[in-house]
Amino acid sequence: MKEFTVAVYGLGNIGRYAIEAAEAAPDCRCLGVVRRRESLGTRPFDLRGLPDFPDMDSLVAAVGKPDAVIVCGPSRNVPADVPSLLEQGFNTVDSFDIHTEIPALVRKLGETAAKNSAVSITAAGWDPGTDSVLRALFEAMAPSGTTFTNFGRGRSMGHSVAARAIQGVKDATSITIPVGGGRHSRLVYVLLEEGERFDEVRARIKADEYFAHDDLEVREVKSEMELALTADHSHGVLMERIGASGLTSNQRLSFDMRINNPALTAQVLVSCARAATRLAPGCYTLIDVPVVKLLPGERETHIARLV
Amino acid sequence: MKEFTVAVYGLGNIGRYAIEAAEAAPDCRCLGVVRRRESLGTRPFDLRGLPDFPDMDSLVAAVGKPDAVIVCGPSRNVPADVPSLLEQGFNTVDSFDIHTEIPALVRKLGETAAKNSAVSITAAGWDPGTDSVLRALFEAMAPSGTTFTNFGRGRSMGHSVAARAIQGVKDATSITIPVGGGRHSRLVYVLLEEGERFDEVRARIKADEYFAHDDLEVREVKSEMELALTADHSHGVLMERIGASGLTSNQRLSFDMRINNPALTAQVLVSCARAATRLAPGCYTLIDVPVVKLLPGERETHIARLV
Repeated sequence: MKEFTVAVYGLGNIGRYAIEAAEAAPDCRCLGVVRRRESLGTRPFDLRGLPDFPDMDSLVAAVGKPDAVIVCGPSRNVPADVPSLLEQGFNTVDSFDIHTEIPALVRKLGETAAKNSAVSITAAGWDPGTDSVLRALFEAMAPSGTTFTNFGRGRSMGHSVAARAIQGVKDATSITIPVGGGRHSRLVYVLLEEGERFDEVRARIKADEYFAHDDLEVREVKSEMELALTADHSHGVLMERIGASGLTSNQRLSFDMRINNPALTAQVLVSCARAATRLAPGCYTLIDVPVVKLLPGERETHIARLV
Repeated sequence: MKEFTVAVYGLGNIGRYAIEAAEAAPDCRCLGVVRRRESLGTRPFDLRGLPDFPDMDSLVAAVGKPDAVIVCGPSRNVPADVPSLLEQGFNTVDSFDIHTEIPALVRKLGETAAKNSAVSITAAGWDPGTDSVLRALFEAMAPSGTTFTNFGRGRSMGHSVAARAIQGVKDATSITIPVGGGRHSRLVYVLLEEGERFDEVRARIKADEYFAHDDLEVREVKSEMELALTADHSHGVLMERIGASGLTSNQRLSFDMRINNPALTAQVLVSCARAATRLAPGCYTLIDVPVVKLLPGERETHIARLV
């Protein structure tokens, strides 16, 4: 089986699971991890024995150039980090998830990737990512109709970060609860900064763009430990389409998944890193990638097994 | 929006719905239909006003060359018909569904397509077809685990044809009933040839390779009209995967659809005809095709809408 190598860039939630997904893959070897300079030298179990480095230059000097870099930092760093990696000639995969900024990012990464003969697969988690494939496939199967993407119940990383940024909030967890028709309510657990009043903080959360449009409940917790008890990785989605194939209505398609969120995101990244080694230079989202390229081994085997 | 033209090759169940799917697509025009010489001249409503021809030569002479030919004859004719169409320089799509013969067919069509600078998309219905995409995507998301594809309840075309071929059977409908774990039971309605004994025919059906391995119930009907009442187009599938992403178990993925069978198959064929006009020469199955190429209009629009 043809093998490929990766580096994991960032040791947050996704990075930890990416190391595991690379370890579990039959054809993938993780060469090392790039992490914050101030963390180097500590040997957390999450590194699983891998060497760690402050940047790609020192990683490449010590362990060689990986076939792809799995970018596991925060989404907001992707527009700066990924072009720089592409300019250094690395193939990259990332799970950038700010939906409205994806088209501009794809254009920018496409130019940089082409110029440097590199491959970038962006927005490659589960939403955006595998959900995007399903939304596109469902439209190809029933072109007229409506799709609802119902998220949850689970913790939204984006909304938790948004809640944490609000004045008076020391820490927060935001749970997404589907209420049908692709709409959601938000349940936010907050730990207040000292001296803050709950009703004022609640009003600020409600006024925030992230929360203004949905039904919202805010609950106060009194300690970090109590907050931690609300912050597991369970998540899910129910995607439903009812529509017409040709002139025939009542075609009913649905996709339901219940998953560990960062584990799935990291797995999709590792599968995309494999695909990145098989594609022509340029920037791709998951709807641009033939699914067979995500799988280990030979196309012919998968045609016999899966088609 | 960039437009494309098709010809429908064969006016059976799938062909009738393919004409409708082409009509419903915003970017597709059906130039005409190739049908059995003995049927020409009749003007069934199913033709929806389109001109009909005995072969592709006369179709091209009268209405021009289509960008793709949608092959809607029986699966068993595909290995002969499609290479001949590719040799005439047509792009083709078909819904060949004899799973075990797909790898050899893909090799053969791949050679012929490359030699003639044509595109063939084969096995492009829902199973094989869109289900194949889902099976591959589910493995990319949770590489270790088990997938069950549960078909039905609905009429199996393949099993109905197999039952009809059995000695003593004048006509038959075979219904597939899922019993869990990717296993199925078969309910076969038979109309006997005159003078045949039900218990003997039942034994012959049970001995047939198509029916030998599943739980089987055979029911006798007494007329073609009674049999026709069992033969609607409703079908469905429940695809379930439970597995691990990386080292994380309990990832649960499922896809459930309830559809008009030939309407969905024909729609997938029209979506693939569009993709065929956008791919490099060669033979593809649906797992080889980026899903965005199945949709009308521009990639950039779909990245903004669906990713």
